[in-house]
Amino acid sequence: MNYHFSDKILPLKPSAIREMFKYTENPNILSFGGGNPAPETFPIAEIRRISADILQNRYVEALQYGITEGYRPLRERLRSQLRELHNIGTDSDNVIIISGAQQAMDLVSKVMTNEGDTVLSEDPSFIGALNCFRSYNTNLAGVPMAEDGMDLAALEHAMKTQPNVRLLYMIPTFQNPTGITTSLEKRKKIYELICQYDVILIEDNPYGDLRYAGEEIPTFKSMDEEHRVIYVGSFSKIISPGIRLGYIVAPAEINAKLTVAKQAADVHTNMFFQMVVDQYLEEGNIDANIARACEIYSRKLNLMLDLIDEYFPKEVKTTRPQGGLFLWCDLPAEADGVKFADLALRHELAIVPGQTFMCRTNRPYPGFRLNFSMPSEADIRQGIPVMGQILKAYLADLQ
Amino acid sequence: MNYHFSDKILPLKPSAIREMFKYTENPNILSFGGGNPAPETFPIAEIRRISADILQNRYVEALQYGITEGYRPLRERLRSQLRELHNIGTDSDNVIIISGAQQAMDLVSKVMTNEGDTVLSEDPSFIGALNCFRSYNTNLAGVPMAEDGMDLAALEHAMKTQPNVRLLYMIPTFQNPTGITTSLEKRKKIYELICQYDVILIEDNPYGDLRYAGEEIPTFKSMDEEHRVIYVGSFSKIISPGIRLGYIVAPAEINAKLTVAKQAADVHTNMFFQMVVDQYLEEGNIDANIARACEIYSRKLNLMLDLIDEYFPKEVKTTRPQGGLFLWCDLPAEADGVKFADLALRHELAIVPGQTFMCRTNRPYPGFRLNFSMPSEADIRQGIPVMGQILKAYLADLQ
Repeated sequence: MNYHFSDKILPLKPSAIREMFKYTENPNILSFGGGNPAPETFPIAEIRRISADILQNRYVEALQYGITEGYRPLRERLRSQLRELHNIGTDSDNVIIISGAQQAMDLVSKVMTNEGDTVLSEDPSFIGALNCFRSYNTNLAGVPMAEDGMDLAALEHAMKTQPNVRLLYMIPTFQNPTGITTSLEKRKKIYELICQYDVILIEDNPYGDLRYAGEEIPTFKSMDEEHRVIYVGSFSKIISPGIRLGYIVAPAEINAKLTVAKQAADVHTNMFFQMVVDQYLEEGNIDANIARACEIYSRKLNLMLDLIDEYFPKEVKTTRPQGGLFLWCDLPAEADGVKFADLALRHELAIVPGQTFMCRTNRPYPGFRLNFSMPSEADIRQGIPVMGQILKAYLADLQ
Repeated sequence: MNYHFSDKILPLKPSAIREMFKYTENPNILSFGGGNPAPETFPIAEIRRISADILQNRYVEALQYGITEGYRPLRERLRSQLRELHNIGTDSDNVIIISGAQQAMDLVSKVMTNEGDTVLSEDPSFIGALNCFRSYNTNLAGVPMAEDGMDLAALEHAMKTQPNVRLLYMIPTFQNPTGITTSLEKRKKIYELICQYDVILIEDNPYGDLRYAGEEIPTFKSMDEEHRVIYVGSFSKIISPGIRLGYIVAPAEINAKLTVAKQAADVHTNMFFQMVVDQYLEEGNIDANIARACEIYSRKLNLMLDLIDEYFPKEVKTTRPQGGLFLWCDLPAEADGVKFADLALRHELAIVPGQTFMCRTNRPYPGFRLNFSMPSEADIRQGIPVMGQILKAYLADLQ
């Protein structure tokens, strides 16, 4: 059979990371490639107890169809908590529940872009989001990153010159893949630019709660006087990713359209885990769980940075994030992250090459991403020195 | 703010049914409008036990990220069971797990259609699917139904005359909304037509297991020698809809593209319920649960048909389905289902007007859908005679 596949899907390749995930089922491979939270951060005792309670006492609601916008108590709880704690959301905003934060990119693309419209993104950025924008045949254009966030001149130039710029996609805090946090000063200037050029910002914030050092920086959403920020939150990194639960805080007018799109995409998010998470939030133990996760991740990050300082060649430039799950290593310009990743894999170390995260993936990129949340401290102690040796050998061969 | 919404979303209205669902939270309303399975069919004792077991013994797998194609044991179990029991699937097919059957329409639209390509559908059909095709800016064209399935001449005419016909969407067994089952003879001719005109068939089969009378009719997928049927199954009507779990059996080449699209849509389906359903299927009690559901629904259907015979005016023509959740009532041509539904709602009876399910929704349609799975037998005994009175008054006013 010769199938007619759409123009939208033909250029898309399977996510290198999701594919690698299958492959790292090989237990001999030490993986610094994934983005999984550490299972020891799952609040399993509470999930067990709350699940049993819901299946005993409220099972009809948990197993029956629900409304597309999400479980009402959870929506209302998030709305008031986010507003109270983080100044996220105004009277004209509301909250909808989605099947993981990834779905926000899918629904927003459908609702806010026509084919050929431009989506701007930090470059590099999260491949799941980039692939989603590609799958709507948008014109995906990247804005290079500095250590405090995007290059503002390049951002404004893109807004001026690219066709129909509709969306700007950002992970402003502990960005995936770089670990970079956009400074408050840059946030203010970026917000001015989106107002000036009539662009909607998707503020993807899955890692914001995972801060190990430094002070919280206000979100874009908290400064959204013009109602042009779609804020995306997730429970994947602070409760569990397997439950597929995220949320959107956006102007009610936008959320109404996203809801229509969601009806046609998956009807609604699974009810049971909406109820589990609502109960978990009501009980008030999530801050303790986040604190526990931060302690675990902070130790792993510091261990990794110390070992990098000790074992990586000095030509490798590494970001030093204050939170999140990732850091980023830049190699000298003549290096190729893909070749280095292949070499590392032959030594049973998995990393994701930088090229994977770029808006244009057809050019080699001299860098790679390291994940520190999933490997154990023993894995980090074992893997980073070996990676340092491989790096030295690889860079020496380039000379 | 004046938001730029996409051409794809602007024409789409919220599903009248999903919207009504909110509204029928009013406990005084007797609803024959929804499509919910009866909660007494949920296998709650088994779900409780299996859930506790998984959260005790396999919780890391249940709460961690999974692979996009779905939980491998469930995929393999479905593949072998469907093949063995229903001759569904060949060596060149495989199974992927999705977040409810609705997601199949979303992913297939993305992968198999460009904007402007034609999607053919039974007319009337399931609004969730129709809205999904609309949300990809396809040319949605309806083929009228006879009592044994689509009008074949109209189907062939559409295949010949509509631009780039890529997909045919059908619910061949106990169709939503009509309750009609396409005869074997028509299935064979329709399969010939899709081969002749190079069309891919989406065979949506959420109700196939819910047969209360007559003999099983082979699925399109079981006769798919040319590998052009995408079979969509669901656990919503035989286990629980709130868990959002369905699956696709399709040629591996198509499923590979659908997987790429799913990565960008919601990463993967929630892991926990994939494991719960896999364990439930392994234990082998689903046939007993289906038999129990069939007994409950069969009684409700027969009760409703008897009361319709007794209380509805003779000008109302009702389908007499052998399974599923719905039947369909056609009124005389001068009637308008929307007006009748409004009238019924004023008497606290909810139904969905026929117009809602049509490919072209801008023309009045003289008919409506009745659901018999969700109302209790007492509701049916109370509601149908009242509906008969309202119908008589409404039709008398039309004279």
